[in-house]
Amino acid sequence: MDKEVKKVVWQGSTQLAPVPAVLIGCGGSCGYKNNLITVAWAGIINSDKPMMSISIRRERYSYNIIKETKEFSCNLPTAAMAAKVDYCGVVSGRKVDKFKETGLTALAGNSIKSPIVEECPLSLECQVFDVIPLGSHDLFLAEITAIQVSEDFISENNKLDLDKENLLAYCHGSYYNLGEKIGSFGFSVKKSHK
Amino acid sequence: MDKEVKKVVWQGSTQLAPVPAVLIGCGGSCGYKNNLITVAWAGIINSDKPMMSISIRRERYSYNIIKETKEFSCNLPTAAMAAKVDYCGVVSGRKVDKFKETGLTALAGNSIKSPIVEECPLSLECQVFDVIPLGSHDLFLAEITAIQVSEDFISENNKLDLDKENLLAYCHGSYYNLGEKIGSFGFSVKKSHK
Repeated sequence: MDKEVKKVVWQGSTQLAPVPAVLIGCGGSCGYKNNLITVAWAGIINSDKPMMSISIRRERYSYNIIKETKEFSCNLPTAAMAAKVDYCGVVSGRKVDKFKETGLTALAGNSIKSPIVEECPLSLECQVFDVIPLGSHDLFLAEITAIQVSEDFISENNKLDLDKENLLAYCHGSYYNLGEKIGSFGFSVKKSHK
Repeated sequence: MDKEVKKVVWQGSTQLAPVPAVLIGCGGSCGYKNNLITVAWAGIINSDKPMMSISIRRERYSYNIIKETKEFSCNLPTAAMAAKVDYCGVVSGRKVDKFKETGLTALAGNSIKSPIVEECPLSLECQVFDVIPLGSHDLFLAEITAIQVSEDFISENNKLDLDKENLLAYCHGSYYNLGEKIGSFGFSVKKSHK
């Protein structure tokens, strides 16, 4: 880097990016109908056992559903689904049936009673083991007990075929698709040996 | 959707994507030298106050540094920095000075003693308030106490100029840049009113 970069200090804010924009499926038990909520405050938190977290505001309709049923599905949408994903983050399941309004299809979970989304290439089935109140949001910690993959995205050697997907990313208030693949984990070290 | 999608059930795994690939800066106090570790298990967990989490394996050199100093910086790299980001996730700070090896520049934090990375357009300064052991990883919960933005990425109206950035994403073991901007939060509802 040739010139010095001038930095400006701002107050703390939630500017981590890119983050996933995922469709969370919930309901289907404890008297709750199937519902969807879009969440960007989501992340992997542990590898063995596989675990993820999502954060949800207590005012949201899905909050009580997930707190009571202790499960949800995390469905990864393609970039082509961006408008439906956005819609599920803007409207409330108190007022509309989001599966009906978006035309998305609820399929049965394998290890959970919450629905998964047929149109998403990949769905993570999650069982909540802790809920931590943090302020505006509660943090739901969950084990990923199964995943469901659309057959079209499985390669001949029975692996996820990544290049067939174009997953949706969220970055500072806007949705993006993924661009070029730059390299795989470890490529920097392999390169230096050539 | 015209045809029924066939789903295959696999055991649970950490297949959330895309996730951020961030350079975590640590050290600079408690006798620790400046260090960098690349982390993809990171996410926003609360909006007010702004908070994020990162998960780190106990075996990693940075684990004790962050646990003792109770702070870190989370630096968002551009896609052009992918090889340096990968390198900082592959090698250990026990053996090499990663700032020296990558040529990345440590700048002073504003609210923390940990270094931030000059070459990253955006750095989140984080103070750890809880550490939760989960199995392979410990989950560090932190408040984002300040952010530092490179002046080149601030627009005339004093906002982040998103389109000048091309941030790095991590997706199922590979690095990607971001592609096209699809729309901003709420675009699905605005669209339907036209």
